[in-house]
Amino acid sequence: MSKKHNFSAGPCILPQEVFEKSAAAILDFNGIGLSLLEISHRSKDFVPVMDEARAIVKRLMKLGDDYEVLYLGGGASLQFVMVPFNLMKLENGKAAYLDTGTWAAGAIKEGKKLGTVDIVGSSKEKNYSFIPKDYSVGSEYDYFHCTSNNTIYGTQMKEFPKVDTLMVCDMSSDIFSRVIDFTQFDLIYAGAQKNMGPAGTTLVVVKKEILGKTGRDIPSYLDYSLQIAKESMFNTPPVFPIYASLLTLQHLENNGGIEAAEKRNIDKAALLYAEIDRNPLFETFCEKEDRSLMNVSFKLLDDSKKEEFDAAWKNAGINGLNGHRSLGGYRASMYNALPIESVQVLVDVMKNLN
Amino acid sequence: MSKKHNFSAGPCILPQEVFEKSAAAILDFNGIGLSLLEISHRSKDFVPVMDEARAIVKRLMKLGDDYEVLYLGGGASLQFVMVPFNLMKLENGKAAYLDTGTWAAGAIKEGKKLGTVDIVGSSKEKNYSFIPKDYSVGSEYDYFHCTSNNTIYGTQMKEFPKVDTLMVCDMSSDIFSRVIDFTQFDLIYAGAQKNMGPAGTTLVVVKKEILGKTGRDIPSYLDYSLQIAKESMFNTPPVFPIYASLLTLQHLENNGGIEAAEKRNIDKAALLYAEIDRNPLFETFCEKEDRSLMNVSFKLLDDSKKEEFDAAWKNAGINGLNGHRSLGGYRASMYNALPIESVQVLVDVMKNLN
Repeated sequence: MSKKHNFSAGPCILPQEVFEKSAAAILDFNGIGLSLLEISHRSKDFVPVMDEARAIVKRLMKLGDDYEVLYLGGGASLQFVMVPFNLMKLENGKAAYLDTGTWAAGAIKEGKKLGTVDIVGSSKEKNYSFIPKDYSVGSEYDYFHCTSNNTIYGTQMKEFPKVDTLMVCDMSSDIFSRVIDFTQFDLIYAGAQKNMGPAGTTLVVVKKEILGKTGRDIPSYLDYSLQIAKESMFNTPPVFPIYASLLTLQHLENNGGIEAAEKRNIDKAALLYAEIDRNPLFETFCEKEDRSLMNVSFKLLDDSKKEEFDAAWKNAGINGLNGHRSLGGYRASMYNALPIESVQVLVDVMKNLN
Repeated sequence: MSKKHNFSAGPCILPQEVFEKSAAAILDFNGIGLSLLEISHRSKDFVPVMDEARAIVKRLMKLGDDYEVLYLGGGASLQFVMVPFNLMKLENGKAAYLDTGTWAAGAIKEGKKLGTVDIVGSSKEKNYSFIPKDYSVGSEYDYFHCTSNNTIYGTQMKEFPKVDTLMVCDMSSDIFSRVIDFTQFDLIYAGAQKNMGPAGTTLVVVKKEILGKTGRDIPSYLDYSLQIAKESMFNTPPVFPIYASLLTLQHLENNGGIEAAEKRNIDKAALLYAEIDRNPLFETFCEKEDRSLMNVSFKLLDDSKKEEFDAAWKNAGINGLNGHRSLGGYRASMYNALPIESVQVLVDVMKNLN
């Protein structure tokens, strides 16, 4: 079988080492004669995994003891619910949201169920083809919520606003991909299944001091304070997804951390965008200044070449290039683990289409 | 290394075939040249996994089309929250709960946050050493909630009451272990990490017709109706835990189904309880008629023999025999995948303690 070039939007390519080590752990974890899948999450073998999975996030993000790290179940979609439960005041709660795509809209929908939501900026009318920039967020809001990268439309926030309230960010699709001052955020969450691991767990990084101020009686599983008090072991955590996430983050740390990953991601994106800009057959969906380093959503302008193009990339061993079902076209997701060689294979296919 | 005998309370032993097949799928899923961890959950390779994981549950439980099957994240603890959100009426909601242990109490706590909870029976005053039986549940309640098996105390409901309302059961620790008429329940849930798979996903089996009647605006992730409409793919599901659960259920189906598993579980429990009853050094925590087939919680009556006993079972390759931290003593969890040979090893160690 020819080598696969996996541009899948998530779950997505992870380092080969993660596949090998996690498969080995299922057969025999750390040489203890038991599978990772059959040991207690409170055993002396797994507790260090959870401890290190929490600690490595703070090292990579350069965060101090004022932040706590959690690994939860339920996906980022459950965080859409947990954020307002933990941060939206019970009496006259009001939050500001930035509407930059399908997932941002999903978060907005859940915020509205617990209080007033003001959409301070939206690109919905232009099919989410840009990131709104002219807005301000005052102290009358309980928090501001934004989405750092929009997988479907291929847009990414290059800068984050200064706001006069708590700063919450869904970083599901670009966490650990670029150097950011993470201390500008009060709460960050990310479904693991892009840059940090397989599907099945969600990272939450939260400043302790912001919690416990809403007056709500929060359902236990949804309560960040309780999850923190139990060190992410309020109940049985998703053991395998957390272990594979730890392996992924260790691989990142051992290969130059976020700084080195960012350099590789810039090079990969430059290579593909250069071909799109050069080649009259292709065009991105979004405005140039808001282009994502992670997800390149683009269209083929000559429909008569679609069959030829689809056959060519499939023959080249490329996987996962179809656009999201809501937008159509193509999407090349180039997460941390995708090598630049795979991008070159795609660019060559695009060059050869005449 | 000597063979391990894994009595862990959960996550727990699974069939060896599950470890081997799931590890292989991480290296190359179904020969497609990609890892199970790096493919889209909406790909033609994974969708059949989700479909079959849902279908096999209905076959094993002999349920018809009036039931729906979901695989969610967040654990049974999130179901403690979801059950009242979906079944407790917004206006004057009232539910009946049976208090048979720590997990039942956890469910009660969450129910109280959304309405009135009446505890119709409790063994708390006697340290949960029995299952309350004299109670009735009338139609004034939105639902009745019970816990079929109590892992910590080693008790199990042998029969389920006839109630005049919806019947909800947390079967986390004994699902698929014994023949039950599952049609007597309106909603069943179970964290996977005992008899049905690794940690990281929770099974929900629910009768469609009971949903949508509370008048609540339910947060999306918590809404069973929405999860059903999206066929358990409302968001990215916990891919690996679901696949490993499917392998576990396929193993069960290929080895005689629940009927055969129940026979093996009865034999294992009989072997261990016979030794406890014969041996004056040991005693269960609970009353005889309520003893669990899954979790045998017992104490050593002569403290001076503790060191010798602990050394002996560890030398015999036994793992996970310590009791829950809240109760102490010992706990032998004998889930479906534990072979009777392991129980014999434990019984021999107990026999040899003088």
